[in-house]
Amino acid sequence: MARWQPHASERLATAALELFEQQGYDNTTVIQIAERAGLTKSTFFRHFPDKREVLFGGGAVTGLIAEGIAAAPAGAGPLDMVAYVLEATGREVFTADRHDFGTRRSAVIAANPELRERDALKGLRLTAAMSEALERRGIPGLTARVAAELGVLAWKLAYERWSDEANGDSFAELGRQALTEVRAATALC
Amino acid sequence: MARWQPHASERLATAALELFEQQGYDNTTVIQIAERAGLTKSTFFRHFPDKREVLFGGGAVTGLIAEGIAAAPAGAGPLDMVAYVLEATGREVFTADRHDFGTRRSAVIAANPELRERDALKGLRLTAAMSEALERRGIPGLTARVAAELGVLAWKLAYERWSDEANGDSFAELGRQALTEVRAATALC
Repeated sequence: MARWQPHASERLATAALELFEQQGYDNTTVIQIAERAGLTKSTFFRHFPDKREVLFGGGAVTGLIAEGIAAAPAGAGPLDMVAYVLEATGREVFTADRHDFGTRRSAVIAANPELRERDALKGLRLTAAMSEALERRGIPGLTARVAAELGVLAWKLAYERWSDEANGDSFAELGRQALTEVRAATALC
Repeated sequence: MARWQPHASERLATAALELFEQQGYDNTTVIQIAERAGLTKSTFFRHFPDKREVLFGGGAVTGLIAEGIAAAPAGAGPLDMVAYVLEATGREVFTADRHDFGTRRSAVIAANPELRERDALKGLRLTAAMSEALERRGIPGLTARVAAELGVLAWKLAYERWSDEANGDSFAELGRQALTEVRAATALC
């Protein structure tokens, strides 16, 4: 893997992933992560509040949700707005060149209870961010909350499939499929 | 408030709530909770894995979800099965005589980040338990997952309203209302 990465937060995430794989999450310190990334501990803490957060983007994805929903055209339904978020996520975060990282990241999270807990809480923060962004577009409170639950479920499904080693589809394509499946399942409830 | 309670886990929860209100969550130990309840530390740990869990029923509600869904009649739709869970919860857990406890419990959780985090994770465990119980009733995987998200959302709405000091409606009634509202919101997504 190439060591050079354009952004500090990506370099830190890559370094952390390598260390978690090699020596385990519990045995890895923030200082080791920063050193391997060629950065300082204080740079680490400018990007992430703690070690647990390093594989979770430190809020970047939450910002993307707000942007994606703000960019949806007037008159779009709540889940159509969510489709814009999945599209933007595939274009800006879960890109083809991040696929290997995504696969390895999922394996590391699955193996560690603390990271699984952070992952679960992150899902809740995504839901809250999506619900708030939908409300800012005029969607009534409870409808926004329901659409956010369904949207984040589609997001999780798409991510599970995208980070599967054998899957070559783009995140945007998997997001569209997942959203279609979630809509169909909702109609059966 | 009457000090005597029939069950150890309820006595421990009541004692914990009183102590959290009086001296704060962080300043309260498991030993203090057990002492106030007239029980031992080892009895505490037979009911709850840690201090954070004492206000969350230690798995009782998860069991109720499985029972409620198993009791729904054959041919019921996924959200109709969820209605049985809300009904059973109102009958067995969030009863009228627990209303004061519920109101105070909500205030204590809202005031403490650790308890808010546990509450959030508990919601995810309820969702997983509901989804599994629906699958055992033959509901396909993704439909079960969607119904569980919607069902737990209705549950949370009902609990928010029930634990509101001014609200005199039963949990079962609030659950029915919430489920109707969630269904209506879903149709607008």
